[in-house]
Amino acid sequence: MKKVGIIGTGNWGTTLGFLVSKNVISNLKYFKKEILIYGIVEEFEGKSMDKLINEDHENKKYLPGIKLPDNLCYTSDIQLFSDIDIIIVALPHQFIDSLIKFKEYLKKDIIVLSVVKGVIEYKVSFTLVSDYINEIWGCSTNVLMGANIASDVAKGLLGNILYKCEGTLGYHQEYDRDVLFRLLNCKYYKISCTKDVVGVELCGSLKNIIALGYGVTVGLGCSKNTSISFLRCGLGEIKKFLNFFFPATSSETLFQSCGIADLIVSCSMGRNYKFGKAKAEEDISLEDFEKKIGNQKIQGVGTANCIYNYLITKERKDDFPIIKMIWSIFCDNEECDKILDSF
Amino acid sequence: MKKVGIIGTGNWGTTLGFLVSKNVISNLKYFKKEILIYGIVEEFEGKSMDKLINEDHENKKYLPGIKLPDNLCYTSDIQLFSDIDIIIVALPHQFIDSLIKFKEYLKKDIIVLSVVKGVIEYKVSFTLVSDYINEIWGCSTNVLMGANIASDVAKGLLGNILYKCEGTLGYHQEYDRDVLFRLLNCKYYKISCTKDVVGVELCGSLKNIIALGYGVTVGLGCSKNTSISFLRCGLGEIKKFLNFFFPATSSETLFQSCGIADLIVSCSMGRNYKFGKAKAEEDISLEDFEKKIGNQKIQGVGTANCIYNYLITKERKDDFPIIKMIWSIFCDNEECDKILDSF
Repeated sequence: MKKVGIIGTGNWGTTLGFLVSKNVISNLKYFKKEILIYGIVEEFEGKSMDKLINEDHENKKYLPGIKLPDNLCYTSDIQLFSDIDIIIVALPHQFIDSLIKFKEYLKKDIIVLSVVKGVIEYKVSFTLVSDYINEIWGCSTNVLMGANIASDVAKGLLGNILYKCEGTLGYHQEYDRDVLFRLLNCKYYKISCTKDVVGVELCGSLKNIIALGYGVTVGLGCSKNTSISFLRCGLGEIKKFLNFFFPATSSETLFQSCGIADLIVSCSMGRNYKFGKAKAEEDISLEDFEKKIGNQKIQGVGTANCIYNYLITKERKDDFPIIKMIWSIFCDNEECDKILDSF
Repeated sequence: MKKVGIIGTGNWGTTLGFLVSKNVISNLKYFKKEILIYGIVEEFEGKSMDKLINEDHENKKYLPGIKLPDNLCYTSDIQLFSDIDIIIVALPHQFIDSLIKFKEYLKKDIIVLSVVKGVIEYKVSFTLVSDYINEIWGCSTNVLMGANIASDVAKGLLGNILYKCEGTLGYHQEYDRDVLFRLLNCKYYKISCTKDVVGVELCGSLKNIIALGYGVTVGLGCSKNTSISFLRCGLGEIKKFLNFFFPATSSETLFQSCGIADLIVSCSMGRNYKFGKAKAEEDISLEDFEKKIGNQKIQGVGTANCIYNYLITKERKDDFPIIKMIWSIFCDNEECDKILDSF
């Protein structure tokens, strides 16, 4: 029987905690009932996260209004991860370095799943989050991406049949796939599996760049034809990027939830979309916008900068006019309406 | 110098007339200036279509508010098509049989372009519109499909830079491609070309089935995750249908404007989407809905029926659960919320 631990108590980490706590109940042959969710010591409205999750069974800060199962147990004690068999990493990618402190406590043969969207940015290149975790922990990290608005997934888990959704699992070993599929798949959250781990993860990062630009087209007042044309051409650049720099990835992955579905949802209502729209409408700065939405991060800007620098190094920036344009608008003060020249 | 004729004065036929009339002005080396647009003798608000287009330069009935160029000339005289070199067919697919009467007047080596979405329905099978035209006229018909809301394309042609869009040209001969590209492509309407004529045309028809179902999910009050998951799975069935029954088609075509872009636009604001939504919200009948929108046709229902019957004949209906479910809801009185079982 395997014991599951989650690192990260944000809305997606908590929702996955809910999902997994629910799923293991009907799989007690395979999994231990208690699910551990790790977060730093923090308070919300005068109550510790410990009390909120372990006594009130609600993460009021990140997933308000959702009653969590009793078998989801919060802890800030890293040592408790020493008997964990399956770890789900659900941290914002900015905090990924904090995984280092877990290393000394981890079992040798843990199964790791990353749900972290974003890339680890260097000056002129980048590393996939899964590769970074592999390096830190000396393991082989699987990924889960998709069109998953956390609060909507949670509503589905509560029994609202109009809230069903799906995710794409990128896995390395068949054994890991079987275990993770059993752990994650259910009626309201359907999992598709692919061995294209890199394709799955890159889709999850690159779509944020396109969502920024889609927001700009909406903010400018473009026709639906125009915005959707931008989205399509943006998807084309994601496809080209995958084919060109990661030839082992597959275009089939773009047809999965992590590909086109996540792109459309992000372009409809994601944070990056909203910032792009606000940028075109009122020329708001990144800092002011992030403040306005409660210090949540707009990941697309960093990703655009990182990918653009990578393209420069590879002498390929002119082959990706949309990524180049998004970089120009968000990192180099280009006028928003110039976006119309990029597709 | 080639002379261009258009058959059909609906909003898309008129918009293409506008586009082509504008484009030939800068290509007078290749094309005759005068563009012929054929329509039946009809009146709108007491004025003949002849007067509306040839004197007022506005198709008040189908494309109100758009000033048309002087070189777009309306006629109801089929004989005038005897000196036409390039014909664009822009009729609703229900009226396609009316092309027969043109046959005796046509030149032998005309270039034909169909922009007709839909399939010619038989009891247990169907024919592509382009194949049907080939049969009637003994020619080889190219197709143009894409995310093209006619009034938005027209606004782009009027110079509104926020209204730019694109289409996919499926062509048979390189020569036809060159001529049609020169005729159609411009700054505000960008053409991509592919030899996958069948794939382009099928995308244009099948997306209406998916748009009906997308409308149902929205009418039911599904979360965005859920609706987009339906869209993605619907695209998957289009892909499967193409691969399975038309193995010469290419999945690449789905990445073109005729594929994913047209699907998203249709699911956002198309007539089929609107009918699906109304069906779920108020159980309105097809007849009442068509009356309500001025007797415009909801093509998805006939297409769903036709494709479902085709799947039965091929003993493949259970491999296409979404198409089967849309048929059940729209042609066999199934409850709308059953759609959630199909993906």
